[in-house]
Amino acid sequence: MKTTVKIKIRGYHIDHFQHVNNARYLEFLEEGRWHYSEKNNLISIFHQKGISHVTVNININYKRSAVVGEVLRIETSVIRKNRKSVTMLQQVFLNDTDILIADAQVTNVFLHIKSGNVMRINEELNSLLPDIAKTNQITR
Amino acid sequence: MKTTVKIKIRGYHIDHFQHVNNARYLEFLEEGRWHYSEKNNLISIFHQKGISHVTVNININYKRSAVVGEVLRIETSVIRKNRKSVTMLQQVFLNDTDILIADAQVTNVFLHIKSGNVMRINEELNSLLPDIAKTNQITR
Amino acid sequence: MKTTVKIKIRGYHIDHFQHVNNARYLEFLEEGRWHYSEKNNLISIFHQKGISHVTVNININYKRSAVVGEVLRIETSVIRKNRKSVTMLQQVFLNDTDILIADAQVTNVFLHIKSGNVMRINEELNSLLPDIAKTNQITR
Amino acid sequence: MKTTVKIKIRGYHIDHFQHVNNARYLEFLEEGRWHYSEKNNLISIFHQKGISHVTVNININYKRSAVVGEVLRIETSVIRKNRKSVTMLQQVFLNDTDILIADAQVTNVFLHIKSGNVMRINEELNSLLPDIAKTNQITR
Repeated sequence: MKTTVKIKIRGYHIDHFQHVNNARYLEFLEEGRWHYSEKNNLISIFHQKGISHVTVNININYKRSAVVGEVLRIETSVIRKNRKSVTMLQQVFLNDTDILIADAQVTNVFLHIKSGNVMRINEELNSLLPDIAKTNQITR
Repeated sequence: MKTTVKIKIRGYHIDHFQHVNNARYLEFLEEGRWHYSEKNNLISIFHQKGISHVTVNININYKRSAVVGEVLRIETSVIRKNRKSVTMLQQVFLNDTDILIADAQVTNVFLHIKSGNVMRINEELNSLLPDIAKTNQITR
Repeated sequence: MKTTVKIKIRGYHIDHFQHVNNARYLEFLEEGRWHYSEKNNLISIFHQKGISHVTVNININYKRSAVVGEVLRIETSVIRKNRKSVTMLQQVFLNDTDILIADAQVTNVFLHIKSGNVMRINEELNSLLPDIAKTNQITR
Repeated sequence: MKTTVKIKIRGYHIDHFQHVNNARYLEFLEEGRWHYSEKNNLISIFHQKGISHVTVNININYKRSAVVGEVLRIETSVIRKNRKSVTMLQQVFLNDTDILIADAQVTNVFLHIKSGNVMRINEELNSLLPDIAKTNQITR
């Protein structure tokens, strides 16, 4: 289930160029993914099953500057799965508008905590993660 | 001129997963780019010429976790230019080894501060930035 | 008017010691003060009047560790004024309990933006800031 | 042994007010303390002895703004011990001058990792930490 979280931009998010710093967006995106995991009950399931995850790639486009006082709306969903990874789309919009501030694709792999081995995106993960199960596209 | 900077990992760089947080790498990369600009005398030239730059894309691969006490070596160089953008390669290695911790391509556009207009990568910029002039590949 | 804001602790707030990093609390406190300024309409008033403020001292006690998944409740109020400074009390509680995670006194001075001069805490500021007007104690 | 570390201010250290953000100084101070622990061989000793430490108070004065391109020099030493805590003085100067940007007193307690109990500042700690042994003043 796609989730949405809002963050109001404060003075400490801003850098020398008077806009939100490029690194700070990655914290905003991580906030979006924690919120996604929470709303989709993934944190407790993963904890029970001994599954962890690691981010292996983030590809972020910075489209428009965001400044102090603006509110960002971060939408997070699963868009693609490969044999061993799942990619999420995260879009950062200006408040309630369609104005795109940034978008990112974030790719994660899943690990069995005990063995440290990377998991294949198999029936077990599909059953735990409806969003992944629904994502048909297996591109590799 | 390719530049190199080293950063020692401290406790405050580490997150819940006991490795350097994904957002913190973007600060390390930005440190590498400030260092590059400094060593290549770009900061004063850009200031004189009224040129600014904006990061439009960062594509980062996280290859291997880095933990407290390790030293990271960040190498920064220009690898590609398009009509309106320049892409830098930044590689994060473990100390003096070839072990790759992360690599990123960071794409910037240049702006005339006065007009706010995006500059074409033209003779003027080539003359200011030898690394850009030397980069033959214009991919778009 | 005392204000309250809540922040849920995520993995990126945590450091090597598995609790919220000492520096991150200062961002949480700054979030609390931005929220206070907003709820008390100070941001627009200060902007109109050409008044800025600078933090000159933060004295923070770390009472108990906070870990991932916990919710912090940050309460912000004015507790003391001197001739040229105003001190806010910020208390960080665990969610809806009385368990104190941290408390801080944050002292600010006010500046006329145009002249850069520090303002005395006078009738003008008292009239703009009811919380300051109500604070009787002038300790220096 | 008092230690000194230098940090060059970059764009990502700066906030909305065009100076180094108040929270960022606490990372600079933490960098200074990690450096102190390293130079005084405390990290390995504490690891061997199963001793940890927790910061219980930071009292920081912000004296003068620091801006992009400036270099900060952070000096760290032990100045006071109580029965159960040790206080370090950290002074942040502008490069090689005596211009004070900020100063802070940072108070830590030591813990036996196994029991979680706070240690008294006793002969054992004095023998491990010459700087603490030399600090005569026991104020409480």
